[in-house]
Amino acid sequence: DPDFEHLLQKVKEIVDSNEKRRLPKTPKGTRDFANEHMAAREKTSTTIVNVFKRHGAMGLETPSFELRETLTEKYGEDSKLMYHLDDQGGELLTLRYDLTVPFARYVAMNGLTKYKAYQIGRVDRRDNPSKVRLREFYQGDFNISGDESIEADFEVVKVLIEVLNEIDIGDYMIKMNHRKLLDGMLEICGVPNHKLRTICSSIDKLDKQSFEEIKNEMIEEKGLDAETVEKIGAYVVLKGDPLKLLSQLKNEGSEFLKNDSANEALKDLEKLFEYLKKRKCIEKVVFDLSLARGLDYYTGVIFEAVLKEGPTEACSIAGGGRFDNLIGMFGTKHVAAVGFGVGIDRILTIMEQLPKHDNQEIRGVETEILVSVLGDDKSLAIELVDMCWAAKLKADYIVSKRLSKHFDIAKQFRIPWMVIVGQHEIDKGIVTIANKQANVSKQVVMCDFVEELITLINTTTLL
Amino acid sequence: DPDFEHLLQKVKEIVDSNEKRRLPKTPKGTRDFANEHMAAREKTSTTIVNVFKRHGAMGLETPSFELRETLTEKYGEDSKLMYHLDDQGGELLTLRYDLTVPFARYVAMNGLTKYKAYQIGRVDRRDNPSKVRLREFYQGDFNISGDESIEADFEVVKVLIEVLNEIDIGDYMIKMNHRKLLDGMLEICGVPNHKLRTICSSIDKLDKQSFEEIKNEMIEEKGLDAETVEKIGAYVVLKGDPLKLLSQLKNEGSEFLKNDSANEALKDLEKLFEYLKKRKCIEKVVFDLSLARGLDYYTGVIFEAVLKEGPTEACSIAGGGRFDNLIGMFGTKHVAAVGFGVGIDRILTIMEQLPKHDNQEIRGVETEILVSVLGDDKSLAIELVDMCWAAKLKADYIVSKRLSKHFDIAKQFRIPWMVIVGQHEIDKGIVTIANKQANVSKQVVMCDFVEELITLINTTTLL
Repeated sequence: DPDFEHLLQKVKEIVDSNEKRRLPKTPKGTRDFANEHMAAREKTSTTIVNVFKRHGAMGLETPSFELRETLTEKYGEDSKLMYHLDDQGGELLTLRYDLTVPFARYVAMNGLTKYKAYQIGRVDRRDNPSKVRLREFYQGDFNISGDESIEADFEVVKVLIEVLNEIDIGDYMIKMNHRKLLDGMLEICGVPNHKLRTICSSIDKLDKQSFEEIKNEMIEEKGLDAETVEKIGAYVVLKGDPLKLLSQLKNEGSEFLKNDSANEALKDLEKLFEYLKKRKCIEKVVFDLSLARGLDYYTGVIFEAVLKEGPTEACSIAGGGRFDNLIGMFGTKHVAAVGFGVGIDRILTIMEQLPKHDNQEIRGVETEILVSVLGDDKSLAIELVDMCWAAKLKADYIVSKRLSKHFDIAKQFRIPWMVIVGQHEIDKGIVTIANKQANVSKQVVMCDFVEELITLINTTTLL
Repeated sequence: DPDFEHLLQKVKEIVDSNEKRRLPKTPKGTRDFANEHMAAREKTSTTIVNVFKRHGAMGLETPSFELRETLTEKYGEDSKLMYHLDDQGGELLTLRYDLTVPFARYVAMNGLTKYKAYQIGRVDRRDNPSKVRLREFYQGDFNISGDESIEADFEVVKVLIEVLNEIDIGDYMIKMNHRKLLDGMLEICGVPNHKLRTICSSIDKLDKQSFEEIKNEMIEEKGLDAETVEKIGAYVVLKGDPLKLLSQLKNEGSEFLKNDSANEALKDLEKLFEYLKKRKCIEKVVFDLSLARGLDYYTGVIFEAVLKEGPTEACSIAGGGRFDNLIGMFGTKHVAAVGFGVGIDRILTIMEQLPKHDNQEIRGVETEILVSVLGDDKSLAIELVDMCWAAKLKADYIVSKRLSKHFDIAKQFRIPWMVIVGQHEIDKGIVTIANKQANVSKQVVMCDFVEELITLINTTTLL
C-alpha cells in the first residue's frame, strides 16, 4: 500500500528529527575534526611547517586569548567580529582574531628585532559561517620582523609559493599590490587623506561585490563625489603581468611618478618583481590594483593567494603583506615586519572537494596489525597484542566468535595484517599470520610470533 | 664615588621598571611558548601521539569552546573555574575545561559506541596560577568508549605507562582506586548517600592538605559526625602494594565484602591487578584508598600518575578513570567509557627543571646551512640560499661586512654548515663550504655548490 508506506515514511522522519533535536551540538560555525579529517590536517600541517622550518623560522605559540587592549584598534572594520570573554572579575579578555597581532605583541614584549617565526594555531571570528568559512579555524603564519629590506618581502612570498606548491592544491595565483600605491592612487583620484583606510575597506570587497555596489557605498555612505569614484573605477580594473603593468604605470608620463607614496611603492614592487623573475616565480604573480586587504595594519607590499579553479572559484586561501608600524603600536620601539597566513582549514575543505584528493589513501587509524581471537578468551588477546605493543608495532585486538566480524573490522579500518587465533591454533600452540592483499598466510609458533611478524612485514611487497 | 654609583643604579631601576610597565603582556596565568620550548613540546607531543596511535586511536579535535549547557553539571565543585564567553547575542558559550566532556559530547552527537580516540588540545581553567599551574595548558587525552570490560581499563593504564616510560620524565607511580570502593567505604563509615560526592571532593584534597584540615571541613562545613570522620581517617591511610592491600581488604572478614558497591569494585580491581601483574606493570601501581579524583563524572577505576622525585615532589602529571554515565548524560543512549589525560605543559615545565633535560640538545631552529655573504650583495645571497631551498635544504642567509657577525649567528643558532662568499670567492667564482665542528673547509665552484654541499653533509661524521 503506497499510502501506508508514505505515512510510515512521514512518521519515521518526525521521529528522526525529534531524535536530532535532542542530540548535543557544537556552537554555530564550529565543527569537530576526526578520523580521516584529522589525518589529512596532520599531513597538510606537517608539509607547511616543514617549509617554514626550511626557511629558518622558529616555532611560536601564543595564548588563545589576549588582553582586550592588545587587540583593539588593530583590525579596522573587522573589530566587531571579535569574541570577547565574559567579565568574571580581573582582566578583560578577547579570543585572538588572527596570529599577526599576537606575533607583534610577542616581539614588542620581548624587545626583539630580527626574528623569524612560524605559528600554527586557531583563530576565532564571529563572522557569518558557511561551508568553507568557519568561525574557528586553523591558520599557519610565517613572519619576519626587524628586516625592512625587500629581500624579506621576497622570502615571505617565496615561502608562500613553496607552501602552495608542496600541498598540491591545484593551480593558483598570487595577487599583489602595495598599500602605498593604493594610497597614492586614491590621492590622485581625489580621496581626502582621512578617508584612505575606509575607502580601502570598500575596495577590499571587490572580490565579492561588483564595482556598482561598492560605488554606491563610496558615494552614499562614505561621501566621495562621483568623479573621484569614476577615477577609482578606471584604476581598479588594471591587473595582469607584473612587469608589463609596472612599466605601464611608470611610463605614460604617469601621475604615479609625481605622487611620493605611489613612487616609493613602484620602486619596492620593481625590486620585488625582479627577484621573483630571477627566481622563476613571477608567472604565479598577478599585479592587481584592486587588491586592498581589509586589515588596517598593512603598510607596504600586500598579497593574496587565490585558486584559479576548483569547487569554489577564486577562493582566497592565504594573504599577507608588510606591517611596519604594528609592533611599534605597543609603545615600544619601531620594528619593521612582513609575513603571511594560510587558512589551513579552508585549504582542507577545498581539498576534500577535489576529485584527486578524496582521502582514498588517507587512513583514520594507523593500525598495522589486528590480533583476532576467535572465541571469548580476552586474556589471550591482551597477551598477544601487548607483545606487539612491546615491539612498538601498531596493533589492536578483537575477540569474537563470529569470524565475519573479524574480517569486517580489518576491512573497515584497512588493517593490513591479521594475527588469527582459533581453537585449531590454540591446540597446536601457533598463530596464523595473514595479509589478504599480499596473499600471505603463514602459521608460526605462538611464543615468538612477533619476530616472524616483523620479518614478514619487512619482506612483503604489497600487490 | 660609591654614592653616585648607587644613585645611578636606583635611577636605572626606576627607568627599567617604567619601561616594563609600558610593555604589553599576556593574560594572567598564560604564557607564550617559543624557540626551544616549542621544539621540546613538539618532541614530547609526538612521542605521546605515537603511543596513542600504536594503540589504534584515531585523532579527534573539538572546538575550543562549547555550548554552555554541554559543560554544566559535569565538573562538580570545579565548575566555578570555567571561562565563559561574553553574551554577544546568539548562543551562550564556555571555553572547554577538559577534553573528556567534549569527547563524550562527540560520541553522543555522532551516535557512536565502540570508539578509540586521542586528542591533543588546550583547556582553560580560571584557577590560581603558579609556575607549574597555568590557566591555559595542553592536555593529551586517550579514551575508549563502548567497552565495559576490564580489558579496556587495562589498555588505558597500559597506554599511560607506555607514555610515561617513553617521555622519560623519571620515576613515577600510578595511584589507583575505584569510585565504587570509595562509595562503599564511605557508606560503611556511615556517610549518607547524598553526601558521597561532596565528601569525595574533601578526600581529593588529601594530596595537598593534612587530614586534620579536611576533617574540619567534613565536620564543620559538610555536617558529618566525628565518629564517621574517624572511621574515614582510618581507611584513607591504607595504601601500598596492590595485591597485598586487595587481599587485606577481602580477607579480614571485612565489611567491604558485605557492601555491594565495594564488593563490585574489589572484583574489578582484582582482574585489573592480575592483568597488570601478568603484563609486568604492577610495580608502577600503588593501591591508595585516599585517591578520590575531584571530577564528578567518574564511576569505576580511577588513577593518577605522580612523580616520585624531581623538582616538585609528588606532582600529579596525569589522571583518569572510568566514566560510564557521562555520554548518556547527553540524553542519548548509555555508552560506557574509560580514559585519561596527561598534562603536557606540566610535564614540560618539570622536564625543564630536571638536570638531564636542560634542552642542551634541543635547538629552536633546524637550519643546517648559513649562506654567508661578506659585503653587501643581498641579491647574491638570495640566489645562493634559494638554490638550497630548491634542494629542500634548511637554509638561511646573512649579508654583512663584519666576518665576526657571521660566525656569531652560526654559533647562536648552532647552524653546522656555512657557505662563505667573500671577494676572493666572487673573483674566482667559488664558494667556501665550512663546518667548524667537523673541521671541514672546502672550496667548490659556485654554480653547482649545492650538489657538493649535499655530498659533504652526507659523508661528514660530526666529531
